[in-house]
Amino acid sequence: MSSSGAAPGRGGNDGKPAMRDALVAAAFRLFLERGYEQTTVDDIVALAGVGRRSFFRYFPSKEDVVFPDHERCLADMTAFLYAGGDDDEPVRRVCDAARLVLLMYAENPTFSVQRYHLTKQVPGLRAYELSVVWRYERALAGYLRARFAGLRDGILRADVIAAAVVAAHNNALRAWLRSDGEGDAETTVDHALGHVREAFGAAPAPSVSGGPEDVVVIVSRRGAPLWRVVQELESALGRG
Amino acid sequence: MSSSGAAPGRGGNDGKPAMRDALVAAAFRLFLERGYEQTTVDDIVALAGVGRRSFFRYFPSKEDVVFPDHERCLADMTAFLYAGGDDDEPVRRVCDAARLVLLMYAENPTFSVQRYHLTKQVPGLRAYELSVVWRYERALAGYLRARFAGLRDGILRADVIAAAVVAAHNNALRAWLRSDGEGDAETTVDHALGHVREAFGAAPAPSVSGGPEDVVVIVSRRGAPLWRVVQELESALGRG
Repeated sequence: MSSSGAAPGRGGNDGKPAMRDALVAAAFRLFLERGYEQTTVDDIVALAGVGRRSFFRYFPSKEDVVFPDHERCLADMTAFLYAGGDDDEPVRRVCDAARLVLLMYAENPTFSVQRYHLTKQVPGLRAYELSVVWRYERALAGYLRARFAGLRDGILRADVIAAAVVAAHNNALRAWLRSDGEGDAETTVDHALGHVREAFGAAPAPSVSGGPEDVVVIVSRRGAPLWRVVQELESALGRG
Repeated sequence: MSSSGAAPGRGGNDGKPAMRDALVAAAFRLFLERGYEQTTVDDIVALAGVGRRSFFRYFPSKEDVVFPDHERCLADMTAFLYAGGDDDEPVRRVCDAARLVLLMYAENPTFSVQRYHLTKQVPGLRAYELSVVWRYERALAGYLRARFAGLRDGILRADVIAAAVVAAHNNALRAWLRSDGEGDAETTVDHALGHVREAFGAAPAPSVSGGPEDVVVIVSRRGAPLWRVVQELESALGRG
């Protein structure tokens, strides 16, 4: 296991104890050598050269050591969401937040790919991962619910868009993981999230041509599918 | 607990043993009286008047008795998906499949509402429910992936739409459960799924008011955020 893959935290950079990183590295080395089920917390602390109490100081359970950066990543993503202003188009903001999560995975390709294979093999970890994904989805939905407050069907729209964003993110993440972390994470996730933004009406940044006060007129048959009308609208606004 | 709520299965109708229904009824009676954690499998079999082995013949674990109809419901939904033909618009088909699931819940309001409260209280059951939801989502995505085979980004689109359908379904389900099962499940779910169909290009049936050839004119500043313009457009078209 390469050192870059063993320590996904920012142990050396932001004052987090190196012991935590050492525990993660020891755990993954054993999980890969013996299998997850066959590795005990005692095995991990023995290899890391620390006491049992140190392990539980950082990780409530053996499962938690598999996702050591989840809490930080969720907190960073949430902070990013609320750092935006009222001018930020909400769908774009949640897409950018999901993009941030993928780029955090991509910071440590070796570690992310190892965890991917481990999670596929161990049903208990799969269940844990679902609860992790659920928390990301709720964080995105919570932000959108607040932004859509007072709009008709605001909560419904927030929940549906958050789920779509997570699905697009996970699709891109799996594609990148299956490339053994060698694919272009950024392009992959942007492409996937582009589908969500298209579906929910949020187009790319406005064109620079034309003044902001230009008036655009759209004429449409009432019976035309909404997506067709939006397409024309995007085209007229130079954002398609 | 009313008898209609106690036995969500079709015990009396399709030859499934009444013993299974009796175990579910006994389990829920005890879960409600004592709490889920405080009830053992021994307590359940004692109340139902059967042996321990009978319990495990029907349910691998105590958690499984909380979701006794999940396997049947998933199988029915999957059968429905594949009973359609190539003419069925795929997004509409998955929406109709999700609708079917909600109507299965609505068949037994008392039982569904009791389980909702139980699941909210017990973290272990919440995790179990996430894995249940995940299987529904994968079934919908699997169907869409097959229907979108050969299309550009077919897998991505399938995954995103399946997630959006599940989110809309769950939004409607929660609204109905919070009404203590007294709301109109059909109208609620149709409204929620209508959002998904709109977003992904399969629009609901045209509005009956106004002829299909009515002309709608939208005037917008070029600098207005697109999502605001789309909001107005939806409102003008009577689809918001």
